[in-house]
Amino acid sequence: MRIGIIGAGQLGRMLGFAAARLGDTCEFLDPSADPPAAAAGHVTRAAFDDGEALAKLARESDVVTYEFENIPVGALRSISALVPIYPSADALREAQDRLHEKRLFESLHIPLPAWHPVDSREDLSRALAMIGQPLVLKTRRLGYDGKGQFVLRSSSDIDAAWRSLGGQPLVGEQWVDFDCEVSIVGVRGRQGEIATYPLTRNEHVGGILHTSRAPYEDAEVSALAREYVRRLLERLQYVGVLALEMFVAGRSLLANEFAPRVHNSGHWTIEGAATSQFENHIRAVTGRPLGPTAAKGHAGMLNLIGELPEAARRLTSATLHDYGKAPRPGRKLGHVTVVADTPEERDDRLAEIEARIERSQGKTGRIA
Amino acid sequence: MRIGIIGAGQLGRMLGFAAARLGDTCEFLDPSADPPAAAAGHVTRAAFDDGEALAKLARESDVVTYEFENIPVGALRSISALVPIYPSADALREAQDRLHEKRLFESLHIPLPAWHPVDSREDLSRALAMIGQPLVLKTRRLGYDGKGQFVLRSSSDIDAAWRSLGGQPLVGEQWVDFDCEVSIVGVRGRQGEIATYPLTRNEHVGGILHTSRAPYEDAEVSALAREYVRRLLERLQYVGVLALEMFVAGRSLLANEFAPRVHNSGHWTIEGAATSQFENHIRAVTGRPLGPTAAKGHAGMLNLIGELPEAARRLTSATLHDYGKAPRPGRKLGHVTVVADTPEERDDRLAEIEARIERSQGKTGRIA
Repeated sequence: MRIGIIGAGQLGRMLGFAAARLGDTCEFLDPSADPPAAAAGHVTRAAFDDGEALAKLARESDVVTYEFENIPVGALRSISALVPIYPSADALREAQDRLHEKRLFESLHIPLPAWHPVDSREDLSRALAMIGQPLVLKTRRLGYDGKGQFVLRSSSDIDAAWRSLGGQPLVGEQWVDFDCEVSIVGVRGRQGEIATYPLTRNEHVGGILHTSRAPYEDAEVSALAREYVRRLLERLQYVGVLALEMFVAGRSLLANEFAPRVHNSGHWTIEGAATSQFENHIRAVTGRPLGPTAAKGHAGMLNLIGELPEAARRLTSATLHDYGKAPRPGRKLGHVTVVADTPEERDDRLAEIEARIERSQGKTGRIA
Repeated sequence: MRIGIIGAGQLGRMLGFAAARLGDTCEFLDPSADPPAAAAGHVTRAAFDDGEALAKLARESDVVTYEFENIPVGALRSISALVPIYPSADALREAQDRLHEKRLFESLHIPLPAWHPVDSREDLSRALAMIGQPLVLKTRRLGYDGKGQFVLRSSSDIDAAWRSLGGQPLVGEQWVDFDCEVSIVGVRGRQGEIATYPLTRNEHVGGILHTSRAPYEDAEVSALAREYVRRLLERLQYVGVLALEMFVAGRSLLANEFAPRVHNSGHWTIEGAATSQFENHIRAVTGRPLGPTAAKGHAGMLNLIGELPEAARRLTSATLHDYGKAPRPGRKLGHVTVVADTPEERDDRLAEIEARIERSQGKTGRIA
């Protein structure tokens, strides 16, 4: 099949590799020069809202999908008569606005941190009074990797927070003193069948995903996560892979947000699961049966951010994925995955690799 | 790194995918229209002995390798001053001529079936008298998948055999009543380090590889195979992946031939070994350390020949590799791999998949 993919970053690249193995060809649309997915198919260089380029992509594809959630919904709708698009424009719309997302969680009885819409300075004072401190102020739209956020520690932060983010639709969220962050990747096929991957524990540094480890050790919490992502997939009549990020507090899960796409916290599935998230996304959107999602062992993934040191290239104890991107601070350039027989062995190997990579980056510790 | 690859078939395609994951880019040279490796890099359409195209490939690459052993050695030598080439032209030369190959095995004390050079009709009578019947007559050069062979059952076959193959350099080989066919994939790095994959049991149908299963169950025979491939890699000062095909007769191994490249019988290593043969070939030729070659379980590979049925696309119990080739009788279009915890489970799953694929191909049995 011919698959049109909007966005040609590393997620598109890994989708393209999975599709190629299955005999499909991918055509990408992306405004960047020399994007990572150029190694996995032809890229048309065009803006995400370029109607002509989108229509051409639609006409030349059997199905269209996307690897990036900040595409204008109107752009998707403009081609929806020409080609099946998965996930649907409706699902994308829900994910693009934190207000919709939170209301969706509530309607599905998925617990989430206390929150309040903030459209004015008065709303912000009200949110702070109702929810208490610290309060996390976030833009409703276009936030990722911790961008577009402000943490208010007291009411004296209101001015600074408002200067930083005011003038656009916002939400205030309760600061959750979580035990850890987790995410679950789920997938729903065109016939409505659902599969979920093992729950994954994530560690962020500076707002960017640093490591993921799976399967999460608590079966009860994992079952809860599976149930939540299943509700979400069913309500949205979703087709494709979706990732739901949550906080663990005690034995409870609080939903943070969901991404209507393959997700960084699911990269470990390439080596660590029976079928990768990328292959299952391709299977779902092309109408093939989903592959099994069981873990093959205990997987750990370490993102390579800012630079991809020679030490990573010389590793033999882990699988390297180099996205072929130019180095830049804060940029995800690649990742490595280890799969071990036990969680302890996985953690030891991950720690050893992390230490080796940091030494070669000239750091003495991860947080300098 | 920029890797030039001569040949752009499915082996090139899978080399290209492995290279891309490591951040390398591949440029292929191949005379075919729309070859499989076009999904993994740019292909220059040119003959294998096109001096200008080869020189351009050499100038634009950091290292050159090949996926096809029937390249004129002179073509490789013509660019050897411009770029490092692995495996070397000398290694390729040894592999291209069955006479050289057999003398090499003998000099390394690797046992092989009785044989005799055949350059005339008289040589053929002599070979038959010395070795006995059946005798397998083979061309010295350019044979693959059982092509260029004639089996003589008695001296009355001499005329027919000579009509079929006479007039070119030949060898006569003892027909080995083997228990099974095996192969071993070995790899040697630029610093001389060697790694070997588990021994693989192969089943051919109509001269074409049908299934591979690994690891082979007999540790003693496996150790012998490892020793033989090691001798070969060292003698040739080989860099890259090499496959040695052998017959098992009792507890002995008899060498059949070696291929100076990644090999169909090593495709299972993509899912079934810690590092695939493709990644280790790329690691070897680019001077990176070799990855571990241990099996992850019990792997089985089934080639998809002639047509790639819809049933193969809908499998969820195996990993499909579709090479993106047009169907044609006898053509390798793809393969599927299963990895199981036990040999029994592997064999059951492989048999089940084979039956399902044959049903969908409208056959009632593999050998109709």
